[in-house]
Amino acid sequence: MRSFSYYSPTKIIFGEGAQHKTAENIRQFGGSRVLIVYGGKSAKKSGLLDEVKKNLEQAGIACAEIGGVQPNPRLSLVRKGIALAREFGADMILAVGGGSVIDSAKAIAHGTANPETDVWDFWAGKAKLEKSLPVASVLTISAAGSETSDSAVITNDEVEPQLKRGLNTPFNRPVFAIMNPELTYTLPDWQIAAGVTDIMLHTLERYFAAVTGNCLTDEFAEGLLRNMIKFGPIALQNSHDYDAMSEIMWSGSVSHIGLTGLGSASAKGKEGDWACHQLGHELSGKYDVTHGASLASVWGAWARYVCGANPDRFAQLGRKVFHLSGETVEEIAEAAIDKMVGFFASLGMPTGLKALVGHTLSEKELDELADACSFGRTRTIGNFRELDREDIRAIYAAANC
Amino acid sequence: MRSFSYYSPTKIIFGEGAQHKTAENIRQFGGSRVLIVYGGKSAKKSGLLDEVKKNLEQAGIACAEIGGVQPNPRLSLVRKGIALAREFGADMILAVGGGSVIDSAKAIAHGTANPETDVWDFWAGKAKLEKSLPVASVLTISAAGSETSDSAVITNDEVEPQLKRGLNTPFNRPVFAIMNPELTYTLPDWQIAAGVTDIMLHTLERYFAAVTGNCLTDEFAEGLLRNMIKFGPIALQNSHDYDAMSEIMWSGSVSHIGLTGLGSASAKGKEGDWACHQLGHELSGKYDVTHGASLASVWGAWARYVCGANPDRFAQLGRKVFHLSGETVEEIAEAAIDKMVGFFASLGMPTGLKALVGHTLSEKELDELADACSFGRTRTIGNFRELDREDIRAIYAAANC
Repeated sequence: MRSFSYYSPTKIIFGEGAQHKTAENIRQFGGSRVLIVYGGKSAKKSGLLDEVKKNLEQAGIACAEIGGVQPNPRLSLVRKGIALAREFGADMILAVGGGSVIDSAKAIAHGTANPETDVWDFWAGKAKLEKSLPVASVLTISAAGSETSDSAVITNDEVEPQLKRGLNTPFNRPVFAIMNPELTYTLPDWQIAAGVTDIMLHTLERYFAAVTGNCLTDEFAEGLLRNMIKFGPIALQNSHDYDAMSEIMWSGSVSHIGLTGLGSASAKGKEGDWACHQLGHELSGKYDVTHGASLASVWGAWARYVCGANPDRFAQLGRKVFHLSGETVEEIAEAAIDKMVGFFASLGMPTGLKALVGHTLSEKELDELADACSFGRTRTIGNFRELDREDIRAIYAAANC
Repeated sequence: MRSFSYYSPTKIIFGEGAQHKTAENIRQFGGSRVLIVYGGKSAKKSGLLDEVKKNLEQAGIACAEIGGVQPNPRLSLVRKGIALAREFGADMILAVGGGSVIDSAKAIAHGTANPETDVWDFWAGKAKLEKSLPVASVLTISAAGSETSDSAVITNDEVEPQLKRGLNTPFNRPVFAIMNPELTYTLPDWQIAAGVTDIMLHTLERYFAAVTGNCLTDEFAEGLLRNMIKFGPIALQNSHDYDAMSEIMWSGSVSHIGLTGLGSASAKGKEGDWACHQLGHELSGKYDVTHGASLASVWGAWARYVCGANPDRFAQLGRKVFHLSGETVEEIAEAAIDKMVGFFASLGMPTGLKALVGHTLSEKELDELADACSFGRTRTIGNFRELDREDIRAIYAAANC
């Protein structure tokens, strides 16, 4: 095990009926005036929102609410939430939803606690976050892992083209997460599949690090990937399979909690690789596509482009996750990439850009994507292999089918 | 995944030189007057204690100290620590040592924060712990997992025979743990081997639960056990092997953090089995033997006695951890037990009571142990299979060779 720091204080309340423990946990973490943040119609239609509000009401916890969070959550909605939270005097932000809702709740918490700062400045790197309000969640989508993670991704819809940016800070760690797998039973297949992909990518991004030699971390990463390969297809067969939906839900949290990447930080302090997330963020920012689908669409092209940097690592993935054997490391590595891409395809995910956005991208579009992803040639992405603007363009081009 | 609650807020600072970050983490968690608790000569002789004190001094943190904690830590020393902490006005207790030192620090924290209650009453179940002081540690022994766990075991040396009892409470979770594997380089082989055994038992006790069907939990448990089987022997060959000592150190924490048992709680709310710990506690309470060695001495007899309750589970251990195959479940289960006992033996651990205590126990001694372990026939132990006083005696008798 190489050096690391690990801090994951989020309390997890997992299982059937867990949402009935929302109020008691809000009290435990000091909340008394709560802004509830949610997304579209489903939280209302399913009755979950009313159930949570009733639970709070019975415990004497005051609440206000803001709905309408969209996938790839927007800054403009965050600003509305901040104004409402300040007016209401909220002392805790409760997300009822998936990653987009939780990320919005995190941004609202940061903005509410820092009235002197424009909230986007924290994402733009112009201001340092030093305080926030506590955030908690009742999770309804297994995917982003935002219920335990220290990250939040917001899309700035006030600029053209829109900017999608992530922020990592300990203040993003929610105080608790309510996780009832039954709340995910009504998810459409597409969302389950994109969720499973996102969950796997959170571990794959950490697995393909510049620094290896973390055996317990590898055991956990490989075990989690096998678990998703086992239960993802079962969930797509029957989204009311408690075993499958619960394994996916808990894997989603663990995959972004940090455990599957401990010790992988490079000399520059960067843990894992994360190139595919950067490649994907530009795609979902530009074409408003589902996050998990954007990851599936570039992973294979990324993997084949960078494999030479450390084929042993891809071969280990093949042996441990897909039980592959072969004559040479290169052979097993290549087969592992094929297997992983094939698995994403079996879930119904796009494994190229044409299937993702609906058309083959033009040369101009590829250039725009590469420019945006490299921040106008001012940054590289990735740590397993560092990728500059030309590398980025080459990967987009290889995925453009 | 079955229902569970998981809360593990301890911050981990892992790697070479981690002890130099002690003061900054004390500050982060609000400490300014710290009672340092340590064990015997090694913390002094190695220079670690001075190093930590200097680190605190430079940061302007006041400290007092109490040494002399013994293995199977004693209540009498805890009482001295409480008196000192109160006199000094300590606002945090810092353990510099292994599990016994950390458990003592936890008890001192509870006693200091509750002057109106006799501290043993929390262990005797006569008083409920509602507040405590923050506890942190600089870890020097990989074994007990107390640096992250919610448990603390204290031996009451004020009664005859002595009583060894455990207490589980969220107040036992330390606020941070400083983990530098190099600090374990000078451990004697016996302590490394007993530590590896203890670490494995913390996962095995959770693995053999009444409730199964937690696949991600199983993946993590099996991965952790494989990791110990890989690195335990390497550490015994060379205790200065950073890879081995670091994998053991981190596995020790993870094994008792809760992750390898999530979802295994029985209808009565008991997570895992823990019969071997109860069997072992009586042995180390009565004969003052090393905790890990006491576990190794009874595990095989326990496993053979209870295997019939769910041979599939032992067979899964055999397949996943020892890569065994065979004609029948029973055959693989039996081979798995042999393999595990053989592994403990290969570490130099006793796998029976004679090797543990130095003589074959008399019938009277077996009766005394069974009476004590069943609290005078007033309790059963174990959840994989519930064991009454006669079962307990039968297991001690089977291990009596």
